[in-house]
Amino acid sequence: MKFSQYFLPTLKEEPSGASIASHSLMIRAGLIRQVSSGLYTWLPLGVRLLSNIQLILRQEMDKSGCLEVLMPCIQPYNLWEESGRGDVYGQEMLRIKDRHNNTMIFGPTAEEMITDCFRKNIQSFKDLPKIFYQIQWKFRDEIRPRFGLLRGREFLLKDAYSFDVDFENAMKAYWNVFMAYLRFFKKLGVDVIPLQADSGPIGGDLSHEFHVIAEVGESDLFFDPELVELVKGEINADSVNRMSKLYAMCDDKHIANGSSASVRSAKGIEVGHTFFLSNKYSSAMNVTVQDANGKLLNPEMGCYGIGVSRLAAAIVEANRDSRGIIWPKNVAPFICSIVNLLSNDSSCVEYSENLYQFACAFDMNVCYDDTDSVAGSKLINNDLLGFPLQLRIGKSFVKSSNVEVLHRRCGKVEFINKDNIQEYLKDYFSKAN
Amino acid sequence: MKFSQYFLPTLKEEPSGASIASHSLMIRAGLIRQVSSGLYTWLPLGVRLLSNIQLILRQEMDKSGCLEVLMPCIQPYNLWEESGRGDVYGQEMLRIKDRHNNTMIFGPTAEEMITDCFRKNIQSFKDLPKIFYQIQWKFRDEIRPRFGLLRGREFLLKDAYSFDVDFENAMKAYWNVFMAYLRFFKKLGVDVIPLQADSGPIGGDLSHEFHVIAEVGESDLFFDPELVELVKGEINADSVNRMSKLYAMCDDKHIANGSSASVRSAKGIEVGHTFFLSNKYSSAMNVTVQDANGKLLNPEMGCYGIGVSRLAAAIVEANRDSRGIIWPKNVAPFICSIVNLLSNDSSCVEYSENLYQFACAFDMNVCYDDTDSVAGSKLINNDLLGFPLQLRIGKSFVKSSNVEVLHRRCGKVEFINKDNIQEYLKDYFSKAN
Repeated sequence: MKFSQYFLPTLKEEPSGASIASHSLMIRAGLIRQVSSGLYTWLPLGVRLLSNIQLILRQEMDKSGCLEVLMPCIQPYNLWEESGRGDVYGQEMLRIKDRHNNTMIFGPTAEEMITDCFRKNIQSFKDLPKIFYQIQWKFRDEIRPRFGLLRGREFLLKDAYSFDVDFENAMKAYWNVFMAYLRFFKKLGVDVIPLQADSGPIGGDLSHEFHVIAEVGESDLFFDPELVELVKGEINADSVNRMSKLYAMCDDKHIANGSSASVRSAKGIEVGHTFFLSNKYSSAMNVTVQDANGKLLNPEMGCYGIGVSRLAAAIVEANRDSRGIIWPKNVAPFICSIVNLLSNDSSCVEYSENLYQFACAFDMNVCYDDTDSVAGSKLINNDLLGFPLQLRIGKSFVKSSNVEVLHRRCGKVEFINKDNIQEYLKDYFSKAN
Repeated sequence: MKFSQYFLPTLKEEPSGASIASHSLMIRAGLIRQVSSGLYTWLPLGVRLLSNIQLILRQEMDKSGCLEVLMPCIQPYNLWEESGRGDVYGQEMLRIKDRHNNTMIFGPTAEEMITDCFRKNIQSFKDLPKIFYQIQWKFRDEIRPRFGLLRGREFLLKDAYSFDVDFENAMKAYWNVFMAYLRFFKKLGVDVIPLQADSGPIGGDLSHEFHVIAEVGESDLFFDPELVELVKGEINADSVNRMSKLYAMCDDKHIANGSSASVRSAKGIEVGHTFFLSNKYSSAMNVTVQDANGKLLNPEMGCYGIGVSRLAAAIVEANRDSRGIIWPKNVAPFICSIVNLLSNDSSCVEYSENLYQFACAFDMNVCYDDTDSVAGSKLINNDLLGFPLQLRIGKSFVKSSNVEVLHRRCGKVEFINKDNIQEYLKDYFSKAN
């Protein structure tokens, strides 16, 4: 992608109304624009970010045996009356009358929809276990949308639902998704901590929240520092078993626990949750499957969410400095930017253009700042955009045929001779992270 | 994917309420389920189909220089008052009051949204031309939703919008998208005919509809038979130029034209459209860009839609026989099914399982019917599912070590020795279509 042909309206100034860094940075770096309160349009760079997150999420869910479905945004309200949850969301639930005066809602979550789909199609224990997931837009009519995507109204959610014949199998499903979550976050390149949480009105007593540690987080977290190391290591049954024994509580649960254990405390942004639901919905909505003896039972359910658009903002919140965003390599909209600092110098233009063509030919995820802005402005802009690698072609190129290679995260600068850059890039792109 | 672990609720019987073949087949083959009037849940097989269509669509749009954005489903109604279109959709537009009593709508289309985004971010001719597209859920509150996905209420639309400084450049954008559409449909493996259409209330006098020819189509098409050959050939400026000279009219335009030209007539399902909008929206919404002389002008716009979920149904409508669906290879949810017809025979089980593992190891898009249904039922089921290639492992395998290879579209049957199947598959998958 060449900047001159892209849509990348970056801003030098703080946008008005952005009260936290990620909100400001996502607007300034041209990822999103506000439409109206709590509603955002994703610009091309933001679409790339969302796609990267979704790609990795699908890989991990599929690998864990979960099946992707896609339910409509609009739901018939009568399903919510059936489950008894019609009033739970109060005014946060966007209610709609269609032209035939039927009450519909823009779904904030989809337990009722998937349970209804299940009961119409599955009758036997032989078809279980099953875990369904979808990535779909949801809506919560927040009274005061704020913090950009962290508390928007329309948001992209990965929701998942497990169905099992008994408690033991439901626990297998629960920990299966738990591990998939940890693997997913790790693959993104984001440190996320799982903590025990209160289930609240959803019911059941097994529930975890997954938090990105960040100063602006709305939640207080209390956890054993060992947990941080564990989530960074290999994720398997053993490590998860060890995690489950460590002290790690969300604020409600910590207070209820009355604990003053010598634990680390931090602020966090919730980006995922897991709930064991037991038969709350299957019982209320009269769902039965036959077991091996022909006996009818209400399946045991779990529900599992990841806030995809919220996660996009949390990633920015946790990966930035005073100059801008610092993308983890796996979610970066572009991995590398080629920055031509001397747009009037024909040798710089020619070399940059050739290097860009080379990268495209090898399917490298590279962008090329071919604009005619002055060098200083380009440096500021590309630092703001925060792609992991910057190849600067300017004075040192003209003087000594060197490309200045900046590693955005660590700040390391290397000077690589122009003839060696192609090998350098091949090497960099072949590395996983 | 193994059938035993998948969610593939196929039906032997005609579902009630399905009045056309594609609707019935999509339910029977386990692609979709109705939630309520005009609302459908996509099951795993349907999600794969939708993904395949979207993947190819993105490739062709990106290749043509279009930029992907993503706008929210919910739109503020005041933008529609500004454009003067507030009443155009009448009761088909789903109006919503949020908790602050603001009027919102679930967008049926997004001219206003993209125009608003444009005017807030682009001021100069230097940033043009631009073509933006998105793939997003839309809603039209049809009075009588029917024909399954062909006239649903919530539907997936690829909408695109071009912005240019003058008529000449707007025409370049128009024909650029026109060609991208023809390439896209061709790559899907679907014959689609472009016809001149009335622009109706959208305005402008350049407009084309793209139709899949199908008996159940709601539109009458009148066109020169040469057109059918042209869209099957190479799509380039020359062929498009020839197309534009041939008689090809949608019904309204044909009647208005008063023509009785000796043309072919057929029924068609509209799956795409292109409109030149001129400055209808940019003028109503007061959008200006500076030209090279500093003069302010209203950019010329075009809009371009493809009904993605509707196209999924149209593909089925045009690709089927009395036994079920016949997928074009490029959109098939799975390319090949391995059907073990003798689930009690250990040699068949072992061979099928190994063949499936081989295909997975080589990333072939294969499914494996490992259920214990009787052979006859499996054959019926797999014909219904309609994957391009069926590998049947049963009597001829036991007797003479041959796998029965069925090509679903042409009905050709080959018997391939078990030792040669891996090479056969590699060869089949290496072919593009």
